[in-house]
Amino acid sequence: MYRPEIKLLDCTIRDGGLMNNWDFDKALVKDVFEALAEAGVDYVELGYRADKRIFPPDQSGPWRYCDEDLLRSVAHECSTKVSVMCDVGRTNYNDFLPASESIVKMVRVASYVKEIDKAVHLGDYLKDLGYETTVNLMAVSHVLEMDLDEALAQLAGTRFDAVYLVDSFGYLYSQHIHYLAEKYLKALPGKQVGIHCHNNQQLAFANSIDAVVRGINYVDATVYGIGRAAGNCPLELIIEFLRNPKLNVRPVLDLIGKHFIRLQQELQWGYQIPYALAGCHNKHPRSAMAAMKGDGAIDFRRFYDDLLNEDMV
Amino acid sequence: MYRPEIKLLDCTIRDGGLMNNWDFDKALVKDVFEALAEAGVDYVELGYRADKRIFPPDQSGPWRYCDEDLLRSVAHECSTKVSVMCDVGRTNYNDFLPASESIVKMVRVASYVKEIDKAVHLGDYLKDLGYETTVNLMAVSHVLEMDLDEALAQLAGTRFDAVYLVDSFGYLYSQHIHYLAEKYLKALPGKQVGIHCHNNQQLAFANSIDAVVRGINYVDATVYGIGRAAGNCPLELIIEFLRNPKLNVRPVLDLIGKHFIRLQQELQWGYQIPYALAGCHNKHPRSAMAAMKGDGAIDFRRFYDDLLNEDMV
Repeated sequence: MYRPEIKLLDCTIRDGGLMNNWDFDKALVKDVFEALAEAGVDYVELGYRADKRIFPPDQSGPWRYCDEDLLRSVAHECSTKVSVMCDVGRTNYNDFLPASESIVKMVRVASYVKEIDKAVHLGDYLKDLGYETTVNLMAVSHVLEMDLDEALAQLAGTRFDAVYLVDSFGYLYSQHIHYLAEKYLKALPGKQVGIHCHNNQQLAFANSIDAVVRGINYVDATVYGIGRAAGNCPLELIIEFLRNPKLNVRPVLDLIGKHFIRLQQELQWGYQIPYALAGCHNKHPRSAMAAMKGDGAIDFRRFYDDLLNEDMV
Repeated sequence: MYRPEIKLLDCTIRDGGLMNNWDFDKALVKDVFEALAEAGVDYVELGYRADKRIFPPDQSGPWRYCDEDLLRSVAHECSTKVSVMCDVGRTNYNDFLPASESIVKMVRVASYVKEIDKAVHLGDYLKDLGYETTVNLMAVSHVLEMDLDEALAQLAGTRFDAVYLVDSFGYLYSQHIHYLAEKYLKALPGKQVGIHCHNNQQLAFANSIDAVVRGINYVDATVYGIGRAAGNCPLELIIEFLRNPKLNVRPVLDLIGKHFIRLQQELQWGYQIPYALAGCHNKHPRSAMAAMKGDGAIDFRRFYDDLLNEDMV
């Protein structure tokens, strides 16, 4: 499935940081950037740029803030560009240098559909500073289609370079992906569309390649599938799928052997029954993550019934 | 995705047995049968019926042979039917009672495309004894399309109740599944078509549901995805996908809590880089399983290069 327009974005540190409060060793992040640059990945997202007035910096690791100096200590300018993510309403506009003075080349704005006006405002500000920008519409499986359509129509007239379809809860089946990919592509002529999947139902890779086959050109993945709860689309699988001559999986394999086998044992992302059930039923993984943090064995039947009862009216 | 014609077949013990030489405790297998009967699964495959002249019974566990008495000690006749599998060329015809005297209701014939005439001979013999029969065409990703087409044309005129599309190496992407599902359905009018997937690339569940969406009605799955190497399509996920009112995931969740979390730690099926790479490159998992059996850390880059070099001409 080679299409030169396809851009691969690794968000290992950003999404993986949700599992360790962004507290990665600097040496590990440097290894990640260097390996992914060697692998030919287009963008490497090294964390959030979160507002320190809202998230005090003594309470999270440094990759939640991605200070310019920190980024420069692990990355360098090359054909693999550095990206950071920021949340609508939890971003300090003053934290961004002009792009020409920053090592960051892309800023991705994470937004709920209801915050779209604020996302556009932030996106315009970042575009004026010279960044590539995307907007990542989170939790679309909890949104009325009418509201989604309105948001997409509005985004069509903005300067975002790409709009992401995000399966925040790992709920979407391939039919949903086909339907939504077509909707996004049709509503956003001339813009790129991206895909970001979660692996609760072991569908992150499958849905990502289905999206690519349907015409989506920006694909998110992470090394060894690291990410919140069940994790994300594994970078090593998508590299082998894409068959792009410029991509090379070997440095990613080295990275997995050097760091990510150990990290997985420590942070335990991946397929787990509570995450799977949350995904099947279109739920935030919150209660599943809480269940997984306990010491004892989980009563899966009880967990399932509690999950189904959560929203009883 | 509810369609009353869809039949769910659990092959936990049969495919899982590839990971422990079919050496499951009888009490565990009894728990499996009872839970899956309560869950509403249509068929439970309790093992192979292998030829003892070829596989001496002192060298494998009892579920490789599935003697009638053994099966009766763990299962009973009910709406959930017992199935066994047999391999073409490694089956003793005399091991089968008439179906009316056996607890087994379905026999599945595993066959390579090149053995199809022998498979038809065995299938006819079993059909004459009164069994439901399927033929499971293994390793289709290693077969010339011309040979596959010939085999399907031949099978159209046989008495097999179903013909299975089997992704033995976990290689097939959704496009392949769409293409092959359509081919099988078109070539086999009036017959059921089944799907059996392996999870090397985390695609077993995705490909199974894609096959169902395309019209395939027999679906294989296993509890917690147990199976050779990366395992199979997880039963718990497909039950929630199918939305069939007669299915209930709760007994499966109990089973996972009681036995399969522990079993997974012991047998280690699931996503592993060597299995993934073997899947990506359409290889038998043999060398990956050998690599996983070693004590030390695996050099994934070396494994990858060796894998690609295996078939160099």
